[in-house]
Amino acid sequence: MSTSGHHSRRGKSSPIDAVAGNGLLDRRALLGRGVILAGAIGTAPLGSLTGAAAEPPTEGPLIDAPWSHEPGAAIGPYERPSRFEKNVVRTLNNPNGQPGAQGARTPHHLMNGAITPNGLHFVVSWGGAPDIDPDKHRLAIHGLVKRPLVFTLDALARYPMTTRVTFLECGGNSGPLFSPQPLQADLQALHGLASCAEWTGVKLSTLLDEAGIDAKATWFIAEGADAPHLARSVPLKKGLDDAMIALYQNGERLMPANGYPMRLLLPGYEGNMNVKYLRRIKLVEQPAMSYWEAKIYAPILPNGKAYQFYLLQEVKSFITQPSPGVNLKGPGLYEISGIAYSGAGRITKIMVSADGGKSWAEAGLSEPVLSKAFTRFRMPWRWDGGPATLQSRAWDDAGNVQPTRAEFVAQRGELKAVPPVGAVLNHHFNAVTSWGVDGTGEVKHVYA
Amino acid sequence: MSTSGHHSRRGKSSPIDAVAGNGLLDRRALLGRGVILAGAIGTAPLGSLTGAAAEPPTEGPLIDAPWSHEPGAAIGPYERPSRFEKNVVRTLNNPNGQPGAQGARTPHHLMNGAITPNGLHFVVSWGGAPDIDPDKHRLAIHGLVKRPLVFTLDALARYPMTTRVTFLECGGNSGPLFSPQPLQADLQALHGLASCAEWTGVKLSTLLDEAGIDAKATWFIAEGADAPHLARSVPLKKGLDDAMIALYQNGERLMPANGYPMRLLLPGYEGNMNVKYLRRIKLVEQPAMSYWEAKIYAPILPNGKAYQFYLLQEVKSFITQPSPGVNLKGPGLYEISGIAYSGAGRITKIMVSADGGKSWAEAGLSEPVLSKAFTRFRMPWRWDGGPATLQSRAWDDAGNVQPTRAEFVAQRGELKAVPPVGAVLNHHFNAVTSWGVDGTGEVKHVYA
Repeated sequence: MSTSGHHSRRGKSSPIDAVAGNGLLDRRALLGRGVILAGAIGTAPLGSLTGAAAEPPTEGPLIDAPWSHEPGAAIGPYERPSRFEKNVVRTLNNPNGQPGAQGARTPHHLMNGAITPNGLHFVVSWGGAPDIDPDKHRLAIHGLVKRPLVFTLDALARYPMTTRVTFLECGGNSGPLFSPQPLQADLQALHGLASCAEWTGVKLSTLLDEAGIDAKATWFIAEGADAPHLARSVPLKKGLDDAMIALYQNGERLMPANGYPMRLLLPGYEGNMNVKYLRRIKLVEQPAMSYWEAKIYAPILPNGKAYQFYLLQEVKSFITQPSPGVNLKGPGLYEISGIAYSGAGRITKIMVSADGGKSWAEAGLSEPVLSKAFTRFRMPWRWDGGPATLQSRAWDDAGNVQPTRAEFVAQRGELKAVPPVGAVLNHHFNAVTSWGVDGTGEVKHVYA
Repeated sequence: MSTSGHHSRRGKSSPIDAVAGNGLLDRRALLGRGVILAGAIGTAPLGSLTGAAAEPPTEGPLIDAPWSHEPGAAIGPYERPSRFEKNVVRTLNNPNGQPGAQGARTPHHLMNGAITPNGLHFVVSWGGAPDIDPDKHRLAIHGLVKRPLVFTLDALARYPMTTRVTFLECGGNSGPLFSPQPLQADLQALHGLASCAEWTGVKLSTLLDEAGIDAKATWFIAEGADAPHLARSVPLKKGLDDAMIALYQNGERLMPANGYPMRLLLPGYEGNMNVKYLRRIKLVEQPAMSYWEAKIYAPILPNGKAYQFYLLQEVKSFITQPSPGVNLKGPGLYEISGIAYSGAGRITKIMVSADGGKSWAEAGLSEPVLSKAFTRFRMPWRWDGGPATLQSRAWDDAGNVQPTRAEFVAQRGELKAVPPVGAVLNHHFNAVTSWGVDGTGEVKHVYA
């Protein structure tokens, strides 16, 4: 008996199933057709299914394993993943916390859905995770306001709160794709500096109402309490729109490396502007031109230009399964699945290609499709065992289209040499990513 | 300078603000009105906000603390909450894993939003968390099918997947409210056996299509691989509707105590039917009348009746803040916030009362409001310092209304004596919960 890797019983797809070249299938193609990736059950006994008195089987397809005979571990107060998932962790570019940036990347190739669990949310940090006592932390609102105010966590907890799901992404995410040749690395190394969580907190507009805005104010400066005191200037208009002082991440308090006990949340804006360990918001007449925005987060692009105050994370998508390291195990049916998002709004359409962009078909989107949040897309695919080039391309409700890589580098340029894996590189790469599948089922990063 | 607990500057609410008795306010009442729970900033210097060269303040409202001067901890591969959140954990009724049920309850009074993070998802377990090797685990589909099949995890991963947010709730959750007097316990002890997560997996209907359903099948029996081999009978109609073989919980693989590597997910159905460590699904002509459904999950109610195959978790809501242990700190503005859900569908309305049900006002609901998922509701409230009785009541789109406790116990009866805290009690209590607030701001469980 074999339990995986069976070929389709149906052979080549019929013209009715195919929605684009090289095996992309209609989402209803499977129903009632018997694709059969499972193994058949032989004659071995399955045992009784009528209750606690049933003996576990001692032979046959249902394994007779220690966990069927022994008590498991006592349930604990705070749960962690199985030891068999020890590879599903963030990769670190600076694991000993040497001076400089520490990046921790989300393993999207080993995950599914749209929410990033708190243990795996990406981090870029310039000073490590501070050990902040929440009872001693304060948030001040001052500058061009009528009543400068300072808030304890207890005071903030009494204001009306709001909850929303939104992604965060480092401006440098996907930077390796500026390389002139495709960097041979996995999805986590290429696109792992983006995550999505449910955030709950107090709208900044509520607190600005409390302080009273001076008519001269047009920007505000947000500063963190940790040692780097990262400070960014933000248009006041964003502060009055959907900005939030976030206190909870997926239901529990923020993680220490994600801003505990509070961070600024600017849905759709470049990650570093969502200032962690937020200790003050100062209303001002013009941007501060801080070190962070004048140097660190305004890198010079390969085309010689630097984009300062490049606020928005633009429409992007990438395929998570299959992807480098998540290879195919023989021809037959697979699901192509991935993530799309846009800092400008809601994803309206994802197109997928299996032939390097010659033909495209529209993917299914998991509901709910939320503004400025990860959207999971899916497309059934019958791999015939030959070469394939997989791509996804996203559209948003603000009318933006994810560019092809050729379109993108024509505008922004590309690096002269292949950068090392894990380097923090140029910013705001949002073009199409391509995965090449060879005849053995191995998946590699390619340009197409 | 004081930083919390300030009274409203506005004193009593105007008639325009009030939407129901005892201080419930319109959701727009706050805007531009200056409620001021924060402290004013004095004359102490705030320092420069212009970048990395700025010195942290050494006096004044922004605390000069170690975390402003020293590097933080190195960022790790899998993150856990701050040490200051050590009390935000599941409470355990059987921490050493003695034979019998182990319950781990979600601390809703210390959380916010709608998602339960994986570390805090509730558990009821009869055999502890087994240590299952996912490569050796198998799922069989057999019985009244045309092609009995057995699936590895690798085979399942190739099928089309689906993602949805849904709550799970133990049938025994809220059982302490059958007590003739209100049990003096916190929200976690009363309603902590319910949680909500984003689940991703393969629809059971896809796999049943593969196996081919014999026309005589009307139920299926689901059985777990762990030592208790919990087995439940489920109507086949549910299996063809929204049942899922769940593989991912909030983006990562299921937690060990929540069914790793796979569980049955039956959105809206009693928790134990969502069989963990799922190893087989057998299609049958009638229910198995297993030990689990004939005895364990069919308890005799105080009115002398037992409900067998009481499948649905009915419409329910409760207030999470304030609640016992989350007391009020002086009169003034607060947010009343809570959770509502229904196994029958989508929450359509939540009404809140601050005067024990004499008057009600409609709460705001956080978007998105999803079918069979937690819905977070919120209502601004100005506490005048006098006694108050807080209640919430939920409606769903199937036309169900959460009953008052009086209506509920008239039907189901109540216990003769107050049960011990933490006991597993009678099932399917879904009536209104009441919190009493006294003149000191202390919150207690009351019947009203």
